[in-house]
Parts: sequence; C-alpha cells; structure tokens
Amino acid sequence: MNWTRKDLLGLEELTKEEIEFIISTAESFKEVQTREIKKVPALRGKTVVNLFYEPSTRTRVSFEVAAKRLSADVINIATETSSVKKGETLIDTGLNIQALKADVIVVRHNYSGAAVMLAKHLDISIVNAGDGWHEHPTQALLDILTLKEKLGRVSGLNVSIVGDIAHSRVARSNIWGLTKLGANVTVCAPAMLVPPAIEKLGVRVAKNIDDALRQADAVNVLRMQFERDDENAFPKQLDYFKNFGITKERLLKAKKNIVVMHPGPLNRGIEMSSDVADGPNSVILEQVTNGIAVRMAVLFLVAQARDNSDQEKL
Amino acid sequence: MNWTRKDLLGLEELTKEEIEFIISTAESFKEVQTREIKKVPALRGKTVVNLFYEPSTRTRVSFEVAAKRLSADVINIATETSSVKKGETLIDTGLNIQALKADVIVVRHNYSGAAVMLAKHLDISIVNAGDGWHEHPTQALLDILTLKEKLGRVSGLNVSIVGDIAHSRVARSNIWGLTKLGANVTVCAPAMLVPPAIEKLGVRVAKNIDDALRQADAVNVLRMQFERDDENAFPKQLDYFKNFGITKERLLKAKKNIVVMHPGPLNRGIEMSSDVADGPNSVILEQVTNGIAVRMAVLFLVAQARDNSDQEKL
Amino acid sequence: MNWTRKDLLGLEELTKEEIEFIISTAESFKEVQTREIKKVPALRGKTVVNLFYEPSTRTRVSFEVAAKRLSADVINIATETSSVKKGETLIDTGLNIQALKADVIVVRHNYSGAAVMLAKHLDISIVNAGDGWHEHPTQALLDILTLKEKLGRVSGLNVSIVGDIAHSRVARSNIWGLTKLGANVTVCAPAMLVPPAIEKLGVRVAKNIDDALRQADAVNVLRMQFERDDENAFPKQLDYFKNFGITKERLLKAKKNIVVMHPGPLNRGIEMSSDVADGPNSVILEQVTNGIAVRMAVLFLVAQARDNSDQEKL
Repeated sequence: MNWTRKDLLGLEELTKEEIEFIISTAESFKEVQTREIKKVPALRGKTVVNLFYEPSTRTRVSFEVAAKRLSADVINIATETSSVKKGETLIDTGLNIQALKADVIVVRHNYSGAAVMLAKHLDISIVNAGDGWHEHPTQALLDILTLKEKLGRVSGLNVSIVGDIAHSRVARSNIWGLTKLGANVTVCAPAMLVPPAIEKLGVRVAKNIDDALRQADAVNVLRMQFERDDENAFPKQLDYFKNFGITKERLLKAKKNIVVMHPGPLNRGIEMSSDVADGPNSVILEQVTNGIAVRMAVLFLVAQARDNSDQEKL
Repeated sequence: MNWTRKDLLGLEELTKEEIEFIISTAESFKEVQTREIKKVPALRGKTVVNLFYEPSTRTRVSFEVAAKRLSADVINIATETSSVKKGETLIDTGLNIQALKADVIVVRHNYSGAAVMLAKHLDISIVNAGDGWHEHPTQALLDILTLKEKLGRVSGLNVSIVGDIAHSRVARSNIWGLTKLGANVTVCAPAMLVPPAIEKLGVRVAKNIDDALRQADAVNVLRMQFERDDENAFPKQLDYFKNFGITKERLLKAKKNIVVMHPGPLNRGIEMSSDVADGPNSVILEQVTNGIAVRMAVLFLVAQARDNSDQEKL
Repeated sequence: MNWTRKDLLGLEELTKEEIEFIISTAESFKEVQTREIKKVPALRGKTVVNLFYEPSTRTRVSFEVAAKRLSADVINIATETSSVKKGETLIDTGLNIQALKADVIVVRHNYSGAAVMLAKHLDISIVNAGDGWHEHPTQALLDILTLKEKLGRVSGLNVSIVGDIAHSRVARSNIWGLTKLGANVTVCAPAMLVPPAIEKLGVRVAKNIDDALRQADAVNVLRMQFERDDENAFPKQLDYFKNFGITKERLLKAKKNIVVMHPGPLNRGIEMSSDVADGPNSVILEQVTNGIAVRMAVLFLVAQARDNSDQEKL
C-alpha cells in the first residue's frame, strides 16, 4: 500500500487497508524499541510541534518520545504559556507554526473538530491527539495493535467498551476502527451515558456489565471523569464500581483469556479493582509500549506523504 | 566583515555594517530551511538556554527552533518554575547558567536593561529577546530582512510604525535599525502614546493614520495591549480601530504595493481588519519564517565570536 | 571497580569505593566540558525522564544538560501538568514511564523514600534528585568532588555544615558521604534545627558558629527556608544572619583557605554576606560546574549497569 494522507484526523475517514497499514508499520517500529540504540534517522531535520490545549502528560510524552526516536526535533507548546492567552485564534496559531517550517503539528484540543479545522487551513501535517468528544485515533490504533498482538487477529473478535461512552473520544475511535476491521463491538454504560442511536455505528448495547463481559474476547475500560468538586463524587464512584467495575469475580464468568485494556490513567477501585489491573489479563502497560510504536508509525507516514506530495508538485 | 560581538543586546549599539552582516548571514541560513533536512551542525555540542521571565510562546519557540536547526542543545527556563521564586537575583541566575558551561543565554525580561546587565557580568553570549520597553533586536532584524526581500532594499524606504510607540521595544529597535540603514521612519499613535521628543531619534510624527500611510512603502503595525480587566477595553478597542486600524479602505489611499507587517500575535479587528491581515499586502507569516533565519544567524554569530575571543586568550 | 547498581538512591547505601568511583568517573567527564564540542555519544538512543514533583529549576536543568551532553533524549515531566492531577499513583506513573522504554528516571519528590519505592517496583534505573528530608545524593557528590579539587583530598578534612540540619536532605547526604570518605563532620544550627541523636551519624555538634568555623577546612552553608507568608520572616532572617551568617569578620578567625560552599539558590545577607559569596573562599559556582560532571557520571554508570544486567539475563 502507498500511504498518501498528510494528516491523521480520525479513524472514521480511514479504510480498513489504511488502518492495517498503520498497524503493520507500527509493528516494524516496535522492533526498533528493542535495540540498544532505540533510534532511527527517519525524521532527522524535521520539526514536530506538540500543541496541547488540554493538559495531558501521557499523550504528550508518548508523542515526544516517538518523535525523538525518529530523530525529529520536538517543540512543546502548552496552553498555559501560549499566545492563546493573548487571544490568537487556533488557525492563526497553526499558520504561525507552519511559517516556522515545522513539519507536523500534534494537536490536543477540547473542541471536537479542532484537528480537522487545522488540517483544512494548513499544508503541513496534522495529527489529532484528541479533540473534544470526537476522536483520539492513536489511542484506538494502539488498542488495536495490542489486541492483534494478544489475540492474533481483530476480525471476528468480540470487544466490549465499558464506561462513559457518550463523552469518550476513545470509545468513538475504537468503534470506528474495530468495526472497520471486522470486530463485534458491544458498549456498556450507565443509561445516561449511552448516546442515543449508538447502534447506528454498528455496535450492540449490553444490558449490564455481566452481559458485556460474557462473550467478550477483550474489554476496553474507559476512564471515568467524576467531578472533583462534586460532593457526591465518592458515593457516585462507589455506585459506579458496584455496577460497572471490573473485578476478579466478574472476570470469573468471562472467557478465561479475556484481554483487559484501559487507556489510563487508571482510577483503581473505580473502573476496575487493583487485582485485575495488575493481574494476568491486564495489558495496560503493553498498551503504553505500543503507543510509542503506533505514534512513530503515524508521524513517519504523514510526514513522508507530505514530502511525496511536495515532490509531485515540483 | 568579521563579527566580533559576543552579545546581541540592541540595534542602538550596532553599526550599519553590523546590521547588514546579520541580515546577509540570515539570508544564507534561510536557504537551509528549504532543504529536506533543515539542519546544519554549526552549534553541535553547544548549549543555548532560553531564560524567559515573561510568557512568550512565539519568541521562545522561534529561538528554540533556530537553535535546534543549528544542532545546539536547548534548555528552556520559564519564570513560573525558576529559582527566581526563591529570590535569586538575575545576575546570580546568569552566573549559575554560565557555570553549567552554557554558551548562549537568550533572555526575555520585563525590565529594560536586563540583557545589558547580564552581558556585563557574564563571559558567555547574551541575546536580548526583549527587555521591558527598551529593545527587541531580533524582531527588528526580521522586519528588516522581510522589507529587504519584499522591496529589494531598505535605504530610502518610507516606513511607518503605527501603535503604542511609547511602550514598544519593537518600535524602538525598528527605529534604530531602519534609520541606520537609511530608511525614513514615521511614527503614528494616539497622542498619549507618542513619547516626548521622539523626533530626536530621527523620526517624523504623522498627524494621523492617513498621513502615516500616504507615502509609506511599508507599515509596521504594533500590537495593542488593552488591559483585560479594564471594563472600558471594548469601547477603547473600537475607538482605536476607528482611528488607527489598518483597513482595506485606508490602504486604497496608500501606495499599491505597501507592505503590511505585524509582530504578532495579531488582534484581528483592532490593529487591522482581517481582510488586510490575510490580503496580498500582508507579510505577517513571512516575518515568522524570517524570524528563524535571523535567530539562526544571531545565535551563530555571537557563539562564534565568543569562541574566537576564547582562542585569542590562549 | 565494576559499577553494578542500576539506581542511585542515596549515599547511605554506598561503599567508600563506590563513592570514589563516581567521583573519578565525574573527573573524566569534566574534561568533556572543556572541549569545543561538549558532547559524547555515551547515552545515544537512551531516554532520560526528569520526573519532578517539586519545582526545582537548578537540579532539573543540571540533569537535563548532563543527559544531553551524553547524547540522551530528555523528557521533562513537572507535577503541574502531570497525570498526578488525575490521581495516578507514583508507582503507576513509574510503570508507565518504564513502559515507554525509558532508561532512567530522575525523580524529585517531597516524600522521603519516593526514589527507593520507585526503584523497588521498576527495572529501569532510578536516580534520586532529592526526596523529602531524606537524601540528595548528587548534591553531596558534587560537594565532595569540589572539596577534592580544592583541597586535594577528602579524608581527614574538617567539614562543617551550617543551617537547618533537621530538614535538609543535602546535610544528610553530605554526612553519609563525607564520613564514609574519612572526613570529620561538624554540624551547626539553631537548637531546634539540630536533630536529636545526630551524633549517632558520626558527627560533632558545634556550640556556635565560631566553634564550627575554627578548625574547619570547609564550610557547607545550607539554604534557609523561611516561610514567605510568615510576618516574622524578616526579623527571623536578621536574627539568623546575626547568629549563623557567614561574614568576612567570622572568616578572619577561620583557616585562611577555608572553602565556602552553598547548594544554591543563595539568600544573600541571610546565610552569608555578599562579600563572602563573591569572595576568594567561595566555590559556589564551581559546585554548579561540578554538578554537570557528577550527574553525567551517575547517569552513565546506572544506565550502563542496567545494560550489563540485561545482557547477563540473556
């Protein structure tokens, strides 16, 4: 396959072949991480800008490590210190970064569609590192790579996603990616957190957590965002754990080798018990490792596609 | 010419030949930015410290990109996390950075004279990235490089600077640089924002915005800093735009190819209308691109001058 | 000697030979700093993560410079922007960083034992950059390197430590390191700031500052942390300076070549007078320079030890 997209905005727009191509590119980059010198010169002389409007150490660090292992120069811009304070618009900020002759912008933004908007206005590559409730494509890609490694395939797998489906870009990207690759996706959430007409995306809504786990080959457990200032947070958390928490007892009724995933950071005792998080079914840390390989693949592919398209213009 | 200054503190102290030498060095670095690998090993093994006491993403990022494209190692220090909190003086901070065997300090500070003071007490190179209302020499140098590219020369040009002249280090550095290179400089501002005796710097004060634009080959539009908490900010902004805003209508009465510059970040609809900012006369994004080349040139020249002076001491 | 520890957690656990080996490795890295290209490829392709839960520009920057001069990739994580906000535990954060295939975590934490706890749970190298009141081993190592350079040896030296002994990790690491190397350590502090039974660590408690200085070959002056919001801070500071401040007059009664050290940042006029800080006995800036060499040595040794132990497992 020949990768031609200059941007990675979401999995909704990708074909099955494109998703598989990113995954196989990531697999080859994973080997680099096992070398004594974990670096390749693929993006030497290129500049990757991490433009983060929401705090996110994990995703920023993962992209920063990935870019540096490709030998790119990395510039971090966080909202707190940015010109945003001075009222510059997102597009103006993007145009300015482009004028620095940067090659890739990795953008995290609280508005759905922020990455798409940047990609429309800029010639340089845009990678969506999470936009509002819309998509978080590299998270879904690393989940898919992990599933493939653990279970040998994605097609035909039963994957359940548990948690706040309505407000989760991780859920949306996983649904797009998994259904395109032929997995059967089930979602499970408190009634208020199931988006209406979610079945139109090709997923099944489980009746309860036991129903979600029963046939599942894998369960992807989303992070719950209970309000900190909410004085009912603690009873709500207890209640959530009682009804949706992944526990050893619940796993006993599931398939023996069920793969348990979580995008992190994990709330132990809320989304799952510690014995599950640290137990044999959990692949949470392997997801983190795979995140580097997936992000190396994505940065490499989009930068290369743009170079090729520049050459064609000559 | 042989560049011998270890520091770049302002354009006031430079000769015409020195300014021209920086500009021609920048022109040669600009070519580097067009290569597939946008990097040269000029400062390999050198350490550049960005010491920023005021938040400024644009200038910090521009210096960081410039230093990395010269293969230097870059360390960012921002006020919020600095020892400054613990009461260390600027000079002690500088001496400590020097003791780390850093090679260049790029300093942004709210006090006029901060860079000069550091340069006096330290042997390593100091580059002024803006000190109070005093100077912002690399901004003026990139403005001059842009003018030269767009209009073929600087000598004899009519350049108008519009905005808060009194509190602008960008204005001061531009006035020093442009007049040394033989341009005719006009300033235009609300009466309270014209410094007394500004004519002594060799500039003309325009009667109003139309007078400032009439003969201008270029207009450099300064950023206005309206107080955020000021409840009159909005009426003041409207008023400013009415009297000084650069609009399509006003440009119709100016020279057809007038070059419109702005140091950014732009307040659209306050300092200029969006159709001007995005129109054919605007060179705002070219200024950003030229900022990298100018800063590469400055970092390279001051670091080299210091190496030479070290060798002479042997 | 063959260095085999994957971590540097404190000087308490090290043998005399291990401390001397770090110092001699640091001496050889010091030479690198005098080259025109101040870099060696020793850690090329390795990732060093600075994980700082307390603000500390000096220590973070020193480790960052050291790691970059070893050609490592450096990732900075500061508390303010970290997942810590989202409630992730220290160990989970460490496991996540390990899963990124980082090689060394340099950790600064307000809890004593934080570095030890990370080292127990992780396979990658941990370097303690200060944990609560416990240890700050690289600070003591750079103090020891400075003493050795200035006085030719450490064994048999009389070293006085002045200041808040009770709450100082710098004091504790110095006491462990100096006594192991055969120095005679005296401590001197306001009565409330002398920990009970401190003599059990093999140190003498001086009666007053003159007693502390009389026979001293070197005095290590700790930073005092007067509460900022304390309305009695100023009188307390004056009082402290009167009773414990290192002044020219006091030094007249000490050995002529007494070495005056301070870990920085210095409170001029509180812990010592400016004429002493800037005078011929002060080695404060040489300590900063030696900090780079010591940290290069430590990063190099722990990373190498881990590589060797990985190979043995094969």
